[in-house]
Amino acid sequence: MTQRLEQQFAFLNEADRLKHVMRATTLVDGSRPENSAEHSWHLALYALVLADQAGPGVSVDRVIRMLLIHDLVEIDVGDVPIHAQNGQAHASPQTQAAEAKAAERIFGLLPDDLATALRSLWEEFEAAETPDARFAKSLDRVQPVMANLMSGGGTWATYNVTYDQLETRVGSKIAKGAPGLWEWVKAKARPWFT
Amino acid sequence: MTQRLEQQFAFLNEADRLKHVMRATTLVDGSRPENSAEHSWHLALYALVLADQAGPGVSVDRVIRMLLIHDLVEIDVGDVPIHAQNGQAHASPQTQAAEAKAAERIFGLLPDDLATALRSLWEEFEAAETPDARFAKSLDRVQPVMANLMSGGGTWATYNVTYDQLETRVGSKIAKGAPGLWEWVKAKARPWFT
Repeated sequence: MTQRLEQQFAFLNEADRLKHVMRATTLVDGSRPENSAEHSWHLALYALVLADQAGPGVSVDRVIRMLLIHDLVEIDVGDVPIHAQNGQAHASPQTQAAEAKAAERIFGLLPDDLATALRSLWEEFEAAETPDARFAKSLDRVQPVMANLMSGGGTWATYNVTYDQLETRVGSKIAKGAPGLWEWVKAKARPWFT
Repeated sequence: MTQRLEQQFAFLNEADRLKHVMRATTLVDGSRPENSAEHSWHLALYALVLADQAGPGVSVDRVIRMLLIHDLVEIDVGDVPIHAQNGQAHASPQTQAAEAKAAERIFGLLPDDLATALRSLWEEFEAAETPDARFAKSLDRVQPVMANLMSGGGTWATYNVTYDQLETRVGSKIAKGAPGLWEWVKAKARPWFT
């Protein structure tokens, strides 16, 4: 038991470093960039509050667990803003390899059963194929849209994003896991680009 | 539906302000104070990883939901450090009244069904009487202990805390919801005070 707790806390103390990883997106009031730990909290709260936007077969509690751990690999790799990488659906092979290595190291701090369970949950999120992962990905895409809207442009201004790019890079992803949400957000976002 | 989403996002955008509420506790590396949003994320991760420390009848998914919302009232009231208030089990009547008013305002931004559900979950946490709430409270008490240990003293040094005070103010609360966890953490903390 003692050895198990040592491993659990080695992981929890390492996870603390996610509070240092800065994102391109700012807080809603535009005052400073958001870090990936508080972003993960906000997303889990999104899942809790927007549960009625999830499609059939989605377990909101599983989505919340997924969102709590989805960015931990950034402790080693950092955040790669979607618009900075020209909106590619997936990170470059180099980034993907680095993230896999980070997952190995970070989840590997845990006792074997937990390491396997959380790594598998993270891989499911990355693959974005199950209903839970698609809904989680939709929330991960919609939260920065709201921050940009609230703060007067945000990363859209930083990266000179057009409305068509927003639709392709972000909207299509949100629509996959939460179509009703994208319809509503689109109507809010559209005027900013005209 | 549109009106419902307006309310859901009014709440989610307001919740963003928790990222500005600073706690007395620092990050594990001591580099800066922790904010209450990233603290809430870290605690939810604690619940996920330390689930095997929960007593019988605890729903870890409910505990995670509770921890995600447990500090939202601090948007209006701020954080009251346990050692600063001489370790009183409950906040002063004034603070309690202010927190109830904050809960009314903040959860009141949501559609009625969600407002009722989340407010009730917060009240359950505050009352600390159910197995879920007790486990959630134990985690909320143990996380700053780890931060203090990792950063070389933290709020124990700031507030000249003695080991007996730690035992009374913090240890007894951790032991209520996660006795095995307190036994283990106590052995780590004790040497710091000698």
